[in-house]
Amino acid sequence: MREFIQPTIGGLDPGRRLPQGAAAYRARIGDQLAGICAGFSARAPDLGTAMAEAVMAPGKRFRGTLMLLVAARTGGVTRAVTDAAVALELIHAASLIIDDLPAMDGATLRRGRPTTHVAHGESRAILAGIALVSEAFRLLAVTPGPEGEVRARTVAILAECVGPAGLCAGQDMDLHAPKTLHSVTREQDLKTGALFAAGFRIIAALQGHGAERTEALVVLSWILGRAFQSLDDLRDVAGSAELLGKDTGLDAGHGAGKGLLAVSRYDEALAHYRRLSAALDDALGALWFDSGELTDYIRAILPHDPA
Amino acid sequence: MREFIQPTIGGLDPGRRLPQGAAAYRARIGDQLAGICAGFSARAPDLGTAMAEAVMAPGKRFRGTLMLLVAARTGGVTRAVTDAAVALELIHAASLIIDDLPAMDGATLRRGRPTTHVAHGESRAILAGIALVSEAFRLLAVTPGPEGEVRARTVAILAECVGPAGLCAGQDMDLHAPKTLHSVTREQDLKTGALFAAGFRIIAALQGHGAERTEALVVLSWILGRAFQSLDDLRDVAGSAELLGKDTGLDAGHGAGKGLLAVSRYDEALAHYRRLSAALDDALGALWFDSGELTDYIRAILPHDPA
Repeated sequence: MREFIQPTIGGLDPGRRLPQGAAAYRARIGDQLAGICAGFSARAPDLGTAMAEAVMAPGKRFRGTLMLLVAARTGGVTRAVTDAAVALELIHAASLIIDDLPAMDGATLRRGRPTTHVAHGESRAILAGIALVSEAFRLLAVTPGPEGEVRARTVAILAECVGPAGLCAGQDMDLHAPKTLHSVTREQDLKTGALFAAGFRIIAALQGHGAERTEALVVLSWILGRAFQSLDDLRDVAGSAELLGKDTGLDAGHGAGKGLLAVSRYDEALAHYRRLSAALDDALGALWFDSGELTDYIRAILPHDPA
Repeated sequence: MREFIQPTIGGLDPGRRLPQGAAAYRARIGDQLAGICAGFSARAPDLGTAMAEAVMAPGKRFRGTLMLLVAARTGGVTRAVTDAAVALELIHAASLIIDDLPAMDGATLRRGRPTTHVAHGESRAILAGIALVSEAFRLLAVTPGPEGEVRARTVAILAECVGPAGLCAGQDMDLHAPKTLHSVTREQDLKTGALFAAGFRIIAALQGHGAERTEALVVLSWILGRAFQSLDDLRDVAGSAELLGKDTGLDAGHGAGKGLLAVSRYDEALAHYRRLSAALDDALGALWFDSGELTDYIRAILPHDPA
């Protein structure tokens, strides 16, 4: 379950390796997730196994790794920071289970494996998703180290990112809202940017940063979310199910493509991504710390030229 | 949306009114839920409306009312206690949305109205359930008054009640576990008792009670959960869809009945309920405070003789 996976989006960039620090953080998150997953199975054998398989499916751990890379430069990677990165990965795994359901994207393949509802049945998949969300909140609430005031604050930050002004609203828009460039961007913010923003805001809470530094990280997170999702949309069209290891073109049943490609031609979407990529450089440059390794990692995932 | 509803299980006891204090607490919870629901709709019009309708469907507010009745006698009903009671009701509303889904019980009617997935579609129902869970955690994390340490503790208590050792596991067992009296009792504990227990443990955390008093409340919660669910099973068989305002005999597709009635004859189940009812008297008598009004309220919902 824990073999090394190349740091690619959709498997299209197999030659590129992670910067060393990022690879180590990614492995640390994987190890901690594995320990947590053993606990799921112990508490509820069948449901816990479905939860564990979804969490331990091979993946980039982009959200968690990003958090640790940032935290390392802004105050240090504590146990609480690692727990928060793991909590973000639990939420991300839950969101993939839910998005793949027959009532949503109806995907049968994810990361080269049967999706959770295919492997474990639809009812267990839904319950596994909810239980993972609950476990993410628990982890933030009980992590040793920070004062209770700070832990309660991180719970509130994560809840804002999940609920009716976050991931759930973004997925609902993705499925039901009329498609315009504006609505697609809003979906990207809610479905992707919000979780990056939550991670950075949690770091700021744990490390006690002020409003200005928090804001610089939050600006980065929104641009990252839009660029990340736009690239995913571009590659979803360019790739095939075999290369990507997941169903393509199924997300919400859009026409020519999903997300950005539902509202613009491929060349327009590519130009849009390149503008976001330039904005990403600016946001990274505006941070108050040397973002060298962070920039290298982000560029391994989000290259300037995705063609 | 807020008309007075008789304090019955399944509509079979329409003549019995709530004790005055309980009725006032029930109304207070309804008012606060209405305010919160307005916020859902403001943040995400379509998803928020589905969330609000599920929360504001007429119901007993048994979990929340019970919490306020207990808290009033053990230290007082503060804003934090009311918020926690409301959080419990949000979790309960989410669990009803999820249990009713086509992949679970497949119920089309609940409290005399179309279930959430019938009214709003399956994908939005699932997302509404998850968003309600998230909002419950947020409410506990941000309630004004208690120290952060206490708020974080209440989040952890609720998460233990929802996740792989709580409601999600109970629903998974209900759908998939072989039926024995032992497994049915375990399901009652996880699906019903766990939420009562969470409410009482949260009161103990907010009011700073020690282990002995907390334990007395937790014992009461498990017996309450089993009695409440057993009575529901008994009435599910005895009633009709018209009287109950919900689909009957659909829950997980059991044979003669659901839950307790899947593993025992009606007279055996009735005897089982009566034993639990006697244990409830003992648990109420073992509390360290005068439980008069609490007992009256519980007996309005769970009569000694349900026939």
